[in-house]
This record gives sequence, C-alpha cells and structure tokens, in this order.
Amino acid sequence: MLDFQFYSPTEFVFGRGAEAQVGTLIRKHGGSKVLLHYGGGSAERSGLLGRVRQSLVAAGVAFVELGGVKPNPRDTLVYEGIGLCRHEQVDFLLPVGGGSVIDSAKAIAMGVPYEGDFWDFYSGKSPSAALPVGTVLTIAAAGSEGSGDTVITKEDGLLKRGAGSDLLRPRFSILDPELTCTLPPYQTACGITDIMAHVFERYFTPTTEVEITDRLCEAVLLTMLKEAPRVIADPGNVDARANILWAGTVAHTNLCGVGRAQDWNSHGIEHELSAKYDCAHGAGLAVIMPAWMTHCCGRAPARFAQMAERVFGVTPDPHDPAAVGREGIRRFRAFLARIGMPTTLAELGADPKDVPEMIAKLGLGEDGHMDGYVPLSPADVADIFRIAGEA
Amino acid sequence: MLDFQFYSPTEFVFGRGAEAQVGTLIRKHGGSKVLLHYGGGSAERSGLLGRVRQSLVAAGVAFVELGGVKPNPRDTLVYEGIGLCRHEQVDFLLPVGGGSVIDSAKAIAMGVPYEGDFWDFYSGKSPSAALPVGTVLTIAAAGSEGSGDTVITKEDGLLKRGAGSDLLRPRFSILDPELTCTLPPYQTACGITDIMAHVFERYFTPTTEVEITDRLCEAVLLTMLKEAPRVIADPGNVDARANILWAGTVAHTNLCGVGRAQDWNSHGIEHELSAKYDCAHGAGLAVIMPAWMTHCCGRAPARFAQMAERVFGVTPDPHDPAAVGREGIRRFRAFLARIGMPTTLAELGADPKDVPEMIAKLGLGEDGHMDGYVPLSPADVADIFRIAGEA
Repeated sequence: MLDFQFYSPTEFVFGRGAEAQVGTLIRKHGGSKVLLHYGGGSAERSGLLGRVRQSLVAAGVAFVELGGVKPNPRDTLVYEGIGLCRHEQVDFLLPVGGGSVIDSAKAIAMGVPYEGDFWDFYSGKSPSAALPVGTVLTIAAAGSEGSGDTVITKEDGLLKRGAGSDLLRPRFSILDPELTCTLPPYQTACGITDIMAHVFERYFTPTTEVEITDRLCEAVLLTMLKEAPRVIADPGNVDARANILWAGTVAHTNLCGVGRAQDWNSHGIEHELSAKYDCAHGAGLAVIMPAWMTHCCGRAPARFAQMAERVFGVTPDPHDPAAVGREGIRRFRAFLARIGMPTTLAELGADPKDVPEMIAKLGLGEDGHMDGYVPLSPADVADIFRIAGEA
Repeated sequence: MLDFQFYSPTEFVFGRGAEAQVGTLIRKHGGSKVLLHYGGGSAERSGLLGRVRQSLVAAGVAFVELGGVKPNPRDTLVYEGIGLCRHEQVDFLLPVGGGSVIDSAKAIAMGVPYEGDFWDFYSGKSPSAALPVGTVLTIAAAGSEGSGDTVITKEDGLLKRGAGSDLLRPRFSILDPELTCTLPPYQTACGITDIMAHVFERYFTPTTEVEITDRLCEAVLLTMLKEAPRVIADPGNVDARANILWAGTVAHTNLCGVGRAQDWNSHGIEHELSAKYDCAHGAGLAVIMPAWMTHCCGRAPARFAQMAERVFGVTPDPHDPAAVGREGIRRFRAFLARIGMPTTLAELGADPKDVPEMIAKLGLGEDGHMDGYVPLSPADVADIFRIAGEA
C-alpha cells in the first residue's frame, strides 16, 4: 500500500424527499446567494426545480439560474456561468442534475475567483480557491457528487479534459433515490457502467498489498451485479435504485482507490470517443473497457484472474490465470449486453477510420505511452480499438 | 435501506512517518494551543511523543500535556483535562495513542465549552459545541480516529457509557502503520477483534435491501481474515499492519452502517464485562460476540447464514440456514482462538456469580429489553453469558 491522504468532507443527505432540505443545507454551509445550475427540461417538468426553488425561498436564500448544461458539458456555458456569478455576486454553486451539471458547476466554482482562463485547470494547473458547491443529484453515474473531479469538453476541437482538487468536493450532496426512478433503462445502464468503470480503473493497479481497497472495490462491483438487472427490469424499484445510488457515490469518493496507483486509461480512451461522437460516456465505456481488459489480460493476468474469481465467480486455475481472467471479462461483457449496453464500436456508430485521429488526440506523454497497470503505446491503443470493433 | 445522513469530514493522513506533519495539520485546521493527551510510557519511550513535540514546536504551536490515560478511560482524568484546558486556554485537542486516549480527548473536547457536568453527554444529552480534535493513532482497534463516538468509564461504580456526535469527528487523523508494528500480538488481536465487532454490530440488522452496506461490511471482514493471521505470525509486517489499520478506520466511520438499523448489544454486554474486570475490550468481545451469535442464530438465521457463506466460505444450504450460520460462527470462534483470543468467560477470569450484577447494570429500557436484530430480555442475556461460559 502506498502512503495517501483521504479527505471526503461532503455531508451526504440520503433519502426520499431529501431535496426539501436544500435551502437549510445551503444556509448551514455558509451560502447566501446561489447559482441554480441545471440541464434540460426534465428537472423542470418533474417538478424538482420547483421544489428546490421553494426550499431556497423558504430558507431566505437568494438565487439566479443558469440552465442548458448538455451531456459532455461544454466550456462555453462555463464561461457564461463565471460571468453571471461575478455579476450577481454569487457565493455558492447549486447544481441540480447528474454528473454533467455538477462538473459544469465545479468548473464555474474554480473560474469565478481566478483571474486567468478557467481552462488552465483542465490543462494541469491546480486551483488555489473555489466557490463552495452543494449538489442535488438525479442520476447514479458520475460520482461527481462525492468527488473532487470534473470533466469538461472544449467546444473548439472537442477536447475533453479532467481536473481535480479537494477544493471541489461538494459541501453537501442530496441523494434522493426516488429522483432516479424515472431515468429510462438506457441511461440507467450507462450510469451503472460508469460506476463500475470508476471501480475498475482503481482495481487494476501495479501496487501490491492492497487487500482492503481490493475488497472495497469488489463490494461495489458485486452490488452492481445484483442490483443492476433488478433496476433494468423494474426501473421503479426504489430499493435497487437506492443501493445503486449510494454505490455510485462510494465508487468515486476515492475510498476504493487510496494507497494504490490507478489506471484511468479506459476513461482516457473513452473520452476521445464521446468527444468525437457525443455518445453517452457509459456507452463508450461499455465498448472500451472490455476491449482494454482483453488487451491487458494476456500481459498481466493476475488482477484479471482475481476479478474473475471474486466478482464473477469463475473457478480459480493457478495454472492458467489468463484463461480465468478472460472468462471473467467474457462474463462482464455479457452482463453489459444484458443490461442493454453496446459492446462494439459499430453499435456506437463509430467509424474505424477515425481511430488514428482519436489516438492522436490522446496527448500521450513524451515517451508516447499511457502509464498504468499495463503501460499503453499508441499501437496498444490501436489494438484496443481493434478489439472493440469485434462483435 | 433507511434514509440517512453521512458526514465524515476527517482528513486522514496515512503513511510512514506521517506524524511529522502534525504541527502543520494543527495549523491548517485552526489550532494555536493544544492539549497533548496520551497514555502511559510507551509513546514516550518509543520516541513518538518527542517527534510530535518537535513538529509542534517547528510549526509554532503552543502546547500543554496531560498523560496517564488508562485503557477503559476514566471520568476522573477527563475532569482534570477540562480544568487544565480552561486554565490554559487550549483551543485544540491532540490525543496521541489508541482509542482510549482519543475517547478521553473527545470527552474533554465536549466538556470545556459546557457549563454542566460532561457526564451529561454520556447520559443521553447531545453536545452543541466541542473543541476540535486531531489524532495521532498508535493502535488499530477502536476506530475512534474516524468516528464521532467516545466511551468513558465512571470511576464511581465503574459505569461504562458511550456518547456520539458529528462534532466529535476528528478534524484530522494521522495513521502511520509503522507505529503499530511494535504492538504485542495479544493487544494486536484485541484490536482486530474490536474492528470485526464494529462491523458485525452493523451487519446484523433487521433492515432489508442493504446490499451495498452488506458488501462493504464483508469487505472489511474478509480483509481481517486474510491479514490478521499474517500480523500475528509476523508483528513487524508493515503491509499487513497497513491493511488492518485502514480497515479499522473504515469499519467505524459508519460507512458500513448507514441506512440500516444496527445492533450494538454485544458491545453493550461486553462493556459490563470490561467495566467489572478491567479486561481488554477486544478480549471481552471475543468471548461475548460468538456467544451472542449462537444465541441469536436459531431465532433469526438468515443473516448468520449470509455471513457464513460470504465471509467464511461455508457452503449454502437453503433448507437449513441455521446450520450454515452455526458453522460460520464456529469458524469465527476458531479464527479468534487462532489469533490468541480468549473465547470463554473463564479465560477472562470472570466469575459466573457476577453475571446477575452485570445484567442489572445494563440499564435495560422500560420494557426490560435490548432492541436489535434480535431483541434481548434479561433472560436472553443470561443465556448469552451461559454460552460464553462453555468451553
């Protein structure tokens, strides 16, 4: 295990109707004027935004609004939000929605007190200040409600990049499982895939002696295997929704990843895919992740065999861990297909001719490799795309 | 799953030599004059206290000292600490030690700003303020470094009682696995037992649909089954120590217990045992917990069967879950014996004649029952003591 720091100061308020507490929570955490930030019309139509406004008014919290966040949220709206917050002297960000809305709010939160271009933080610079953020979550997926991470897409050139800082960890997050019950099966499955990816990217590590975090990772994965088919078959199952919702948060606070090197190469490769085709992040991951696993299993089978045995119930075979690993990967891919995810590039509408362009955009380091459990060269990434193209 | 709030704002700094950061962390979290609180001579002899003082001086943090905390920490020293902090205008508590030292510091932290008797908080009153606490942990056991809980023993009558509030969650906790390497095997095993108890008391719940927390509980338990024998066989194994140390923290932040009713009856019964005989808390738990399980398994076998299957690898038998559960309990008791724990009252030096007195002290509710996964009457508790008396 490596040395680490773990700091997750978010106050999680989990429960049916918990959004009624939002005004009080803003007050408790020091906000007096908020930017209410959201996406399209569903939060309005469902009545959620109305209930949130009512709670703000009741608590005496002033607010301005900025809607229109898209999936794969854009820098253009972030600039607009920064300008609005400065003009209106907003002191607290309140995203109501899924990961895209929260990520957009985090970008605004860093941008407001910063004199330069907020995109600097998505190019490697660390923020030294940020407005506080509190969230009302509507989709179990990104884990942004409990993380210090944010991903934004630059409209010009469709560059999708991430930033992270403990300063961005939400002060509070409201998690109401009932809000997630109206999410259609496809989006639900995309969220489930994203949650599992957040765990896998931590699970595949070259760091040894990490039993506690291994077991915590497996806890989230096993939960998803049980609950995901239930919620796909019965989207209104609030018990299964609740388990998935909290698992999604646990998956990405980094509790499952402390003390170990992590491997975010699947996420990195997928970002090029969703930037290029504007596909759902989870759908892209469903295609890339098993392909990444297949490519890497032969080169470093130990962790794939452990995953296969502990998560997918494959019988151990010390003489052929790669075969055990491959069987685990096969079961994972079958699971993804069963919950309605695409598992090939063609299903995403991706064109093999675009692969070289996507590889070029990855911005590999000076030695032309992506570090990770298994280091990847551009040729390795091409092989992963090749596998992802196979039915 | 029940609605819940989860708030664990402690900054955990985990690593070899991390205690060198203590002065900086005190400053970061707003302290300027601290009470350095500790137990007996081992922290002094090992050089740890010297390194802590050095770090405080280097960071310009003033401090006064109060040593002498005993296992099962006493109210008498808490009163002394409250007086000292008031007189010296201390604004931050710094316990250096195990759970007893941290619990004593938390009691002082509540007592300083309170006009009444601090014991009120151990009699059901909730605190409205507390001085901040930061910890340097030396023993993996109590989980107090990440919890809002504290247990104090009243010298007069040896009443052992708990209190809890999110106000008591440490601002930071320093976890250096190397500090735990010198702990003798018996105390190490006591800590391991306490950690597992903190999970079991959450695991046995009447609440249904709690897959994510079930799996998280099992993650900690499985980690202990792997790492405990390693560290008992080789106390200097810092890798195994590191896994146990972090597992012990995760076991008691309440991450494993949110959204479910919990059953702390084993802890409650054991507190009478350690108050009466001043035995190690973990050793008392090793005797009481399997006896409690045996008593309850026949009445509500489902969760014992799940524990047996998922944690102890017992083959499922849907026709006889109680038998599956009993086999799991047998394996748990064998595990405790293997790591050197007592598993009978006689090994603790307890006298069966004292049982009625201990039951009387439990302070059962008006209906004479302890609530829990299985509600317990005084006769049930007597049966648990009877089972605990069997070899």
